[in-house]
Amino acid sequence: MTNGFANTPEPPYLAVIFTSRRTPGDEGYGAMAAEMETLAAAQPGYLGIESARGADGLGITVSYWRDEESVRAWKAVARHRAAQAAGRAQWYEHFEVRVARVERAYGGP
Amino acid sequence: MTNGFANTPEPPYLAVIFTSRRTPGDEGYGAMAAEMETLAAAQPGYLGIESARGADGLGITVSYWRDEESVRAWKAVARHRAAQAAGRAQWYEHFEVRVARVERAYGGP
Repeated sequence: MTNGFANTPEPPYLAVIFTSRRTPGDEGYGAMAAEMETLAAAQPGYLGIESARGADGLGITVSYWRDEESVRAWKAVARHRAAQAAGRAQWYEHFEVRVARVERAYGGP
Repeated sequence: MTNGFANTPEPPYLAVIFTSRRTPGDEGYGAMAAEMETLAAAQPGYLGIESARGADGLGITVSYWRDEESVRAWKAVARHRAAQAAGRAQWYEHFEVRVARVERAYGGP
């Protein structure tokens, strides 16, 4: 990640688009989010991550992966499963996950 | 769009992931962004949009489209082309565009 941008290779690769609205207060969320970013980066097939959350509480995190196998393996990592459970129980008012295959990409200016 | 979330149908559909870092100052950006959201929503094949920008200036906007044809048609709309040119010239320090096919999706909690 450079300056917040994921340094992804040429497509195709996978993108997991995670859109979420946080509940009020931190409640351990910040520490967990940092730990998950570090842990994700150590997984096989990890290509990068981009994340933004506005003052209104809506956030979008996109993680990039080599293939379906690496997406599913990351979802099943024990520590990540615990974070997912805590997210459902207390951190997220609502979330949407979309798994997508990146077909083309370009940058600018 | 409800509460910031796009109300997308069952996959498959396309996602255009636009990650950007803004230059300092507004310089007409806010008005253009609002106009583009309204204009996009009127295009054939538009399914929704989600957007977040953090205090650090990094933003992610994901727009959802029925098919490749609607993605390309939106990119070619004259007023949108003018906004793209202004974005390259002054609003964005850097941006990345990734066009992806959403294969599966789920929400929670």
